[in-house]
Amino acid sequence: MKRQNRVVIDRISPQLNCGEFFIKRVIGQKVDVSSDVLVDGHDLIGVSLLYKHEKDKKWSEVRMNAQMNDAWTASFQVEKQGFYYYKVQGWVDHGLNWQHGILRKLDDNQYVRSEFLEGAQILKSLLKDVSKDHKDYVQNIIAVFEDEKRYPEAVVFARENKLWQVFYSHPEKHLANESNELAVYVDRKKALFSTWYEFFPRSASPEPGKHGTFKDCERLLPRIAGMGFDTLYFPPIHPIGEVNRKGKNNTTTAYEGDVGSCWGIGSQYGGHKDIHPELGSVEDFKHLIQKAKDHGLEVAMDYALQAAPDHPWVKSHPEWFKWRPDGTVQYAENPPKKYQDILPVYFESAGYEELWDACLEILFYWIDCGIRIFRVDNPHTKPYYFWQWIITEVKKKEPDVIFLAEAFTRPKVMQQLAKQGYTQSYTYFTWRDSKHELVQYMEELTKTEQAEYMRPNFWPNTPDINPYHLQFANESKFIQRYVLAATLSSSIGIYGPNYELMQSEPLPGREEYLNSEKFQIKAYDWGKENYLINVITRINLIRRAQEALQQTNNIRFCNVNNDNLIAFYKFNDSRTDELLVIISLDTHNSQQGMVQLPLGELNMGNYSRIRVKDLVTTYEYDWYSEWNYVQLHPNLPFHIFKLIK
Amino acid sequence: MKRQNRVVIDRISPQLNCGEFFIKRVIGQKVDVSSDVLVDGHDLIGVSLLYKHEKDKKWSEVRMNAQMNDAWTASFQVEKQGFYYYKVQGWVDHGLNWQHGILRKLDDNQYVRSEFLEGAQILKSLLKDVSKDHKDYVQNIIAVFEDEKRYPEAVVFARENKLWQVFYSHPEKHLANESNELAVYVDRKKALFSTWYEFFPRSASPEPGKHGTFKDCERLLPRIAGMGFDTLYFPPIHPIGEVNRKGKNNTTTAYEGDVGSCWGIGSQYGGHKDIHPELGSVEDFKHLIQKAKDHGLEVAMDYALQAAPDHPWVKSHPEWFKWRPDGTVQYAENPPKKYQDILPVYFESAGYEELWDACLEILFYWIDCGIRIFRVDNPHTKPYYFWQWIITEVKKKEPDVIFLAEAFTRPKVMQQLAKQGYTQSYTYFTWRDSKHELVQYMEELTKTEQAEYMRPNFWPNTPDINPYHLQFANESKFIQRYVLAATLSSSIGIYGPNYELMQSEPLPGREEYLNSEKFQIKAYDWGKENYLINVITRINLIRRAQEALQQTNNIRFCNVNNDNLIAFYKFNDSRTDELLVIISLDTHNSQQGMVQLPLGELNMGNYSRIRVKDLVTTYEYDWYSEWNYVQLHPNLPFHIFKLIK
Repeated sequence: MKRQNRVVIDRISPQLNCGEFFIKRVIGQKVDVSSDVLVDGHDLIGVSLLYKHEKDKKWSEVRMNAQMNDAWTASFQVEKQGFYYYKVQGWVDHGLNWQHGILRKLDDNQYVRSEFLEGAQILKSLLKDVSKDHKDYVQNIIAVFEDEKRYPEAVVFARENKLWQVFYSHPEKHLANESNELAVYVDRKKALFSTWYEFFPRSASPEPGKHGTFKDCERLLPRIAGMGFDTLYFPPIHPIGEVNRKGKNNTTTAYEGDVGSCWGIGSQYGGHKDIHPELGSVEDFKHLIQKAKDHGLEVAMDYALQAAPDHPWVKSHPEWFKWRPDGTVQYAENPPKKYQDILPVYFESAGYEELWDACLEILFYWIDCGIRIFRVDNPHTKPYYFWQWIITEVKKKEPDVIFLAEAFTRPKVMQQLAKQGYTQSYTYFTWRDSKHELVQYMEELTKTEQAEYMRPNFWPNTPDINPYHLQFANESKFIQRYVLAATLSSSIGIYGPNYELMQSEPLPGREEYLNSEKFQIKAYDWGKENYLINVITRINLIRRAQEALQQTNNIRFCNVNNDNLIAFYKFNDSRTDELLVIISLDTHNSQQGMVQLPLGELNMGNYSRIRVKDLVTTYEYDWYSEWNYVQLHPNLPFHIFKLIK
Repeated sequence: MKRQNRVVIDRISPQLNCGEFFIKRVIGQKVDVSSDVLVDGHDLIGVSLLYKHEKDKKWSEVRMNAQMNDAWTASFQVEKQGFYYYKVQGWVDHGLNWQHGILRKLDDNQYVRSEFLEGAQILKSLLKDVSKDHKDYVQNIIAVFEDEKRYPEAVVFARENKLWQVFYSHPEKHLANESNELAVYVDRKKALFSTWYEFFPRSASPEPGKHGTFKDCERLLPRIAGMGFDTLYFPPIHPIGEVNRKGKNNTTTAYEGDVGSCWGIGSQYGGHKDIHPELGSVEDFKHLIQKAKDHGLEVAMDYALQAAPDHPWVKSHPEWFKWRPDGTVQYAENPPKKYQDILPVYFESAGYEELWDACLEILFYWIDCGIRIFRVDNPHTKPYYFWQWIITEVKKKEPDVIFLAEAFTRPKVMQQLAKQGYTQSYTYFTWRDSKHELVQYMEELTKTEQAEYMRPNFWPNTPDINPYHLQFANESKFIQRYVLAATLSSSIGIYGPNYELMQSEPLPGREEYLNSEKFQIKAYDWGKENYLINVITRINLIRRAQEALQQTNNIRFCNVNNDNLIAFYKFNDSRTDELLVIISLDTHNSQQGMVQLPLGELNMGNYSRIRVKDLVTTYEYDWYSEWNYVQLHPNLPFHIFKLIK
């Protein structure tokens, strides 16, 4: 095919697989686009970034600016939820070319009569487009350019910046070329900035041993909201299977009174659209959702696509499970391990289309009850394209919905789930403990392609993971892990009240909790107060006040001459909020060192000192050097300094 | 859309812009493909690389092997010219999964009666596909698996590697997923390995001052072939414009007898399909092409799409040029500079389709005369898509044709021309002189995406470029620049006989030759012999004998404790030819240092010594250590060591 376009567009960034996947933003964020744009020869080109919201009819246009090495850049801000599309457009700019050429010839004292006639030609072709203001101006220039007697005037006009403006703002896009369209999905702000608190409703009762209810949960709302959390996540609240129910500490035999794992979903009391009777009614649940909202807390539900052997689906839709030649149903296994209390859903089923629809229906049922956040259990054991489809279907109707992928598995698998559409992702932060590991992991998340599609959610602990470094750890360690999560990542969560009560006794030798709530009710002293709770509360308030902590990617690690200290600079997009965070990784000894300010990043102007204000203690210090002394004690093993210039 | 496939294929390498551009190989080379292939859950998957030549009806299949981190790899070899296509296919392997699971259960002493029935089911579904040899075997196993009384036998069969083989070699590709098709273009070997010699036919006369002819050129063939060159490239041989002809040293006034620039193409004697009368006839040219072939030399022509003001096209096709409002034709300019002897072709012409066809016709005319190599003059001043189209059209009919892009311009422009289809590219080697520059440039060419599409051709000099470092340089410098080009890159060229006669007097202060042949006839002593010619000849012979030097990408730089020495390891794909090249960058003093062998790359087995043989001097040395002493003198400032284990 003979394509006459002379401009070529290549290497657009950001993009994922040439547009196969969308990138992600939240309302108010920018998309910084760069692209190589080339033309044959020496002609000047014009380049625009075109973008529009999926509901817009017309493209908005912003001119791109030439950078080094044939790259062009421009940005646009996303203001509405849903998809935006963007593409790059380039053309040879004959008007600017003409002016560029004639100025050089004039400087060289050449006679440019013929060039003026060319200029008049170009200006005539623009006449139809120029605004009323410019019309007289342009018509006058044309007259001057065409009149040989007015040559000296023409020379003056040719040099005018206003003429440059006319050409620049009215490009004749003859033979313009355009890139493919790329997509960015825009979420509400919570997709990027969220502070989660997880607990088991069944342990919410103030009476030890008694099964907690949604009513009990309501009584805990002031405590959790008071600590500064904004998202309240419950493990599954559905009827728990009675067949092959698990006993305490994951034993295969359940005794009278054992409550089973709430991830073993479905019983005579119903399935994924029902509520475990002992927790209350669906009305109670809706009431709790509303009460939580009143406290500024959004309730997140667990979405766990699996069934107990007595889940209603097993009878109503046997084709959604795998049946063995001996007539039994296939339970979950990871040979030689067997999980007889769980049936995996059979995604290779011939009846998969109805199955997917039913899975979607579950989500909409809870959305109708007021839920807008789902934490998805083990998404990596269900097909990737299923997630792509179901997330797309939900967001078409309810763009507010947030999906958090609970996949603790291989890196590429976690990345792929995020690429396919997950809003947020659990991460390896839970196990990243040394400075080297933390820096390397943050660089991977924020400085590679992952920054465009993977929104990390940092959890120091979960009901499944009681990491070795927290087992029997001291208070300083709990503070340190929380402040690391809370300052490195804009989305974080803890599994409480274990975390803030520092209950971390493990199943011996395992990264699991002893007497895990996954299999039994636990009694907590919900009224207990401690220093850790105060620190967590303070950190959460700082997160709410500081935009720099409400995003993850704007981070630069700083040099420190002590590997027990980790330091980094965080900033919001407009750099109106700039923080320097320093955290000690030694929870037993005081540590001191010199921290290097990232002067290249700080627009210091003529200032020769910087004031840093500790947002916890409110103490202020004046720093006059690039390298500055800090000392941290295990009692308060971090500084969150606000930079004041 | 509900896609039931469970396998996802991502990050295939090599690929350019998701398949927008093809990668390049020559006959006999391999394409090493890697891809991330993922499935939900813990199931085993099978992955194949499918490939076929454009003329094949069926895909060939090679199984890919699992590597770290969910990557899979396989290779295929290209045997024919033209396009090959390749893609990755993945599926859940239920047979292997079954065996994997049952073995773990047997190891755990579980009773697996039901699993045997499942195994029988899977095997039955394979029966239609298995070869005759395997049929009885499989039928027997099915019988055993189905018979509860033969349980102990079944256990034995389940463990058999032969059963694994049956499953592996007969995958049931239910719900297999496939990537997009990617393309690789395969050239003849010369596209990768070529040694060019450029001279001006008009300077070929043995009589000083007389205009050389094709007959004169024929007399020089033994000399050039004898030096080991395989490609003979002539600047344009077409009629030279007489209007606005340039004088000596690029002056704007030509005097009586001035021959003009041969890049000012077209006159009363014809245009791009005609021959400058003083050189001879088209029959003479065909005769020369044949004679050259007899000497193992292939003639390359210059393809320069521009016209002198008296080119026949200006009258026959005025629409292919740009006309100014004053009625004059637009000549080339780069304001304030003017090139009145050259008219650029007007690619924005409404008549561009006929223009492109005419440009293609020129190529086919010379192809019919026996030409298969074109060195394209200033391709970056003609549209990229024009090149994509014309190269594609030529190669459809004549896959042997090689296009060398003479673009000395910005990096992205040079890269884009290569992406759009150029076979070979001129490079910045001409100006890369220090060790740091050379290493960095080679890493860019061979270790980035460019390795897939940009085939460098290294020229120490050209008629346009007399680099500062060669101006009045000593013999050692000429040896050094030649051996650098000849060992770093598999395609190289020199502009002679200036190079081998070390004639490098510049236009003062410029990187150009004084009294450049571009504008006048030069008299050379074509019979002269010297040491430099001997060394060039020797190097060219070594290049012909050593496969390691017939490709560019297989290179690893070696540590040397002296920055005046550059050392690298080169090898052919099968590693049957391994070289260690060490070159001194000091052309005035002797230099010595310790070179580190790349032991991690050398499959040393149990050997504790390596023998290195200098391919120039034929001296052999036994090395017993990782670090070894070398010393180089300006007389022979390099070693090309062959490694003998």
